[in-house]
Amino acid sequence: MATANASMHRSVVEHLVRQTVYQRLGKPLPRARHCHLTQDAVEILFGKGHQLQVHKWLYQDGQFAAKETLTLIGPRSRVISNLRILGPCRTLNQVELSYTDGIALGYELPLRSSGDIKGTIGGMLMGPTGFFEMESGIIRALRHVHMNPVDADYYGVKPGDFMKLKIGGDCGLSLDRMLCRVDKSFKLEVHIDTDEGNACNLQPNTPCELLK
Amino acid sequence: MATANASMHRSVVEHLVRQTVYQRLGKPLPRARHCHLTQDAVEILFGKGHQLQVHKWLYQDGQFAAKETLTLIGPRSRVISNLRILGPCRTLNQVELSYTDGIALGYELPLRSSGDIKGTIGGMLMGPTGFFEMESGIIRALRHVHMNPVDADYYGVKPGDFMKLKIGGDCGLSLDRMLCRVDKSFKLEVHIDTDEGNACNLQPNTPCELLK
Repeated sequence: MATANASMHRSVVEHLVRQTVYQRLGKPLPRARHCHLTQDAVEILFGKGHQLQVHKWLYQDGQFAAKETLTLIGPRSRVISNLRILGPCRTLNQVELSYTDGIALGYELPLRSSGDIKGTIGGMLMGPTGFFEMESGIIRALRHVHMNPVDADYYGVKPGDFMKLKIGGDCGLSLDRMLCRVDKSFKLEVHIDTDEGNACNLQPNTPCELLK
Repeated sequence: MATANASMHRSVVEHLVRQTVYQRLGKPLPRARHCHLTQDAVEILFGKGHQLQVHKWLYQDGQFAAKETLTLIGPRSRVISNLRILGPCRTLNQVELSYTDGIALGYELPLRSSGDIKGTIGGMLMGPTGFFEMESGIIRALRHVHMNPVDADYYGVKPGDFMKLKIGGDCGLSLDRMLCRVDKSFKLEVHIDTDEGNACNLQPNTPCELLK
């Protein structure tokens, strides 16, 4: 009897912990195409001394979708307009597209972890005050999960490990190879793109589970 | 020793059978947006007495991509041009789009098994000789696998069951809820759409496994 009670108790606790984790995980909604820019690139595209304006704060502290958007000109002169810039500025220029975007534009996108852009393809950005040619930095970002060391302990994972995101619903799927990115400044959040979200019709109320 | 030999033998046989099944499964490549039409609709869109012309034979016997394409006009007057028609003509009109297409056009697509179009949304088709208004039939097709009864026996499934398609590679995933459609005329083939294919960058050499 003591064993049965202890195990019931444990399952209740696990349920509550898991529920809390889910709430912290938030509603994983796919991230649309976007870019990160250096301050130098911002000034070429939007004018000398221009500072990115906050359109909407993102879940990770200090990160925001900027009011500014720009146009990406692909290799076949096809364009993507209204490409959202995420701020604040970084030390590199990077455009993150879905494979669907890549096919529409004529790019064979390399799959890379954000920041790992050496040897990737480039393209032309157009803003209201000028053009900026990226020599590289156009990628499909590898799906990943941001977490702090406490989250990593909870899941029993370390930086660079891969997890799985199980998404339910009428056309559910499991995303393998969800790269773990761990930093004490991170909040628990999965980053997937619109192809991944649309493959399973991910909606705010779609059940999701992050698994080791 | 007899047991060990028998079990080795069995694993070799299983390997060969599986290899053959994979070859029959072919290279699962995503199916792009397309439509099926009645002969009446074809004649309104392409002219009295018009017969669909074969552009390319598909894997299922007698099925083909037609030379003819048309334009779909969505609810916000946004269009998809070059919508491929698949032949031969059917007894209903049905347009199969991806969720990405639906978002671009302004449709909230219902997820349906092909043919099950009652109560779905409609739209306007435009061809060289006229317009044809569909009252319903615009769907995102539920991912499915065609197989004959011998395949169904092999996998231990029956019509209406769901299987799983495990797709490998650097951004692999597992597609749950792969509906089994069984008919003695069917060849073993999975039908998934471009969102599903692009979510995992499905290429002809990407390893895939169909599982119960």
